[in-house]
Amino acid sequence: MATITDVANLAGLSRSTVSRVMNNYPYVSEEKKRLVEEAMKKLNYYPNSSAQTLRSQKTDTIAVFIPMLTNPFFSYLLEGIDAVATENGFRLLVCQTRYDRKTERQFFNLVKSKQVDGIILTSIENDWSTVRDYMSYGPVVMCNEYDHESNTPNVRLDQVYGGYIGTRHLIDKGHKKIAFCQGSFRSFISKAREAGYRLAMKEAGLQIRDEYAFRIAADYHDGKEVLKKIAAMVERPTAIFTGSDQVAAGIVYEARHLGINVPEDLAVIGFDDQPIAEMTLPQLTTIRQPAHEIGERAMKLMLNLVLPEEDAPPMPEEPLKLEIIERSST
Amino acid sequence: MATITDVANLAGLSRSTVSRVMNNYPYVSEEKKRLVEEAMKKLNYYPNSSAQTLRSQKTDTIAVFIPMLTNPFFSYLLEGIDAVATENGFRLLVCQTRYDRKTERQFFNLVKSKQVDGIILTSIENDWSTVRDYMSYGPVVMCNEYDHESNTPNVRLDQVYGGYIGTRHLIDKGHKKIAFCQGSFRSFISKAREAGYRLAMKEAGLQIRDEYAFRIAADYHDGKEVLKKIAAMVERPTAIFTGSDQVAAGIVYEARHLGINVPEDLAVIGFDDQPIAEMTLPQLTTIRQPAHEIGERAMKLMLNLVLPEEDAPPMPEEPLKLEIIERSST
Repeated sequence: MATITDVANLAGLSRSTVSRVMNNYPYVSEEKKRLVEEAMKKLNYYPNSSAQTLRSQKTDTIAVFIPMLTNPFFSYLLEGIDAVATENGFRLLVCQTRYDRKTERQFFNLVKSKQVDGIILTSIENDWSTVRDYMSYGPVVMCNEYDHESNTPNVRLDQVYGGYIGTRHLIDKGHKKIAFCQGSFRSFISKAREAGYRLAMKEAGLQIRDEYAFRIAADYHDGKEVLKKIAAMVERPTAIFTGSDQVAAGIVYEARHLGINVPEDLAVIGFDDQPIAEMTLPQLTTIRQPAHEIGERAMKLMLNLVLPEEDAPPMPEEPLKLEIIERSST
Repeated sequence: MATITDVANLAGLSRSTVSRVMNNYPYVSEEKKRLVEEAMKKLNYYPNSSAQTLRSQKTDTIAVFIPMLTNPFFSYLLEGIDAVATENGFRLLVCQTRYDRKTERQFFNLVKSKQVDGIILTSIENDWSTVRDYMSYGPVVMCNEYDHESNTPNVRLDQVYGGYIGTRHLIDKGHKKIAFCQGSFRSFISKAREAGYRLAMKEAGLQIRDEYAFRIAADYHDGKEVLKKIAAMVERPTAIFTGSDQVAAGIVYEARHLGINVPEDLAVIGFDDQPIAEMTLPQLTTIRQPAHEIGERAMKLMLNLVLPEEDAPPMPEEPLKLEIIERSST
């Protein structure tokens, strides 16, 4: 029985070109298509993907771990990953971990059993010591989240800086009692943003108060709960760094509901610059994260690990940056 | 070399139970796990997914076609599909078609080359005559969108009713000049909603005007454009049925920007009841679509096609319904 390599040899083309033609990928010239089709015909070769996979051990599929599909930040991140994947003839297996350690470990078996060529992590639930065991089976790229124990390639923004400029902005507006939200205890990006918050507070000689730290606030409904807690305080903060536009939108919504004025009674700063940041009233001041670009880079990084050098897209050199977008909530 | 069937026979269990144990799926008893692991050990069987696939022709993977990952309606739909898939040990290959016919055709090759067990369509770009050819290779389930020429199993809501109750609501509020938006020319759900709109308008003896029909309005930015066009009209409509909360949010935003009062100058009704429907000011009156439940049912329908009867989840009998949620934009 003929193999894909036989087809490539007869057509005088590379294996990857043959694979692209067989899978009807874009950006293959008509001439190459004709050569491959002729060779396949002569060799009586019918492409069955599973048979191909067995021989090549390549699936042209990348698993993407996403904690929550309904958080728009991750939709835009996935959109960026998908744009580069499609352009290069790769497909995405989307694995929603729901912030669950066991679910995440089950998905890691995909690379172990060779069902995907690699894994892109956009969050991480298990300790690195648990995850490390899977690294020998295939490449792993991290984006958005990271772990200080890992040395996997990653797309990482300066989140300490994000926490710093957000808090600094509130201080510059005259606030002294500033609260802080974080998504989860384990998250390294949350820890980095808190470090930035603490740096700015210290620099300004302001007191960091334990009761102003909201430790688990990841979505719109959590934001509403945070506002309710603030409303019940005797000594309320006058400003809050949220770490998420979803949380900020929940705070702004519940504040209007309870008659607390934003920004007069409570200044609110979001994070991400999701579309909702300009839909709320007042519109959200926020820290823009280039979610689409982070996704694109993560997939490019992955392609540089799984494709031969000549087929992989070049990596952009300039680092991705966080920036403050000033609107009306602060 | 031992096969998965050999393992099943030695363990005295079904093939699908063995497959679930090997892939670490949830809801398998410890006793069954032990039996499978013993049999695998005795037969010196190592599960390689591609080898398994070749023998069984099953991948336990379902492709889901999504037109736009960043539209929250589809995120919630995908979330519902994912919930049922995960519970039953299936994985999702997410295929973003970007409303493009060629991209969609390329993805259809996945089922032809046996890379997935079946396909769930949440939208459809190609004519049924083109798509029909792929139906012989594996099951296809449709949800959200449909095609009147197809006879594939589908999860379908009464969209004529949706168009009717939305328009009726605006008429009951005293409006006579009512505009209508649709997502795309080809979409059967858009056509059905327009039929409902026309029915309500006719019933009330109101004039349907061509210049009040906005034919391509699918997202937030399209909504802004629609409002700009309305603002430029000499004889403006006083109400608009949008077919999408994203479009409605864009209209409400741009209206505030241009000093047009919602609902006094222009009543706006959304569709879907996405989270943004309560984040805008005024909050959106909308037609609630149970996106998560639509997704769950579509995946259950698929499992009834790809699994043996005893393993497939039961199908709920009561139909899913659209309902109006009244807020402040009308």
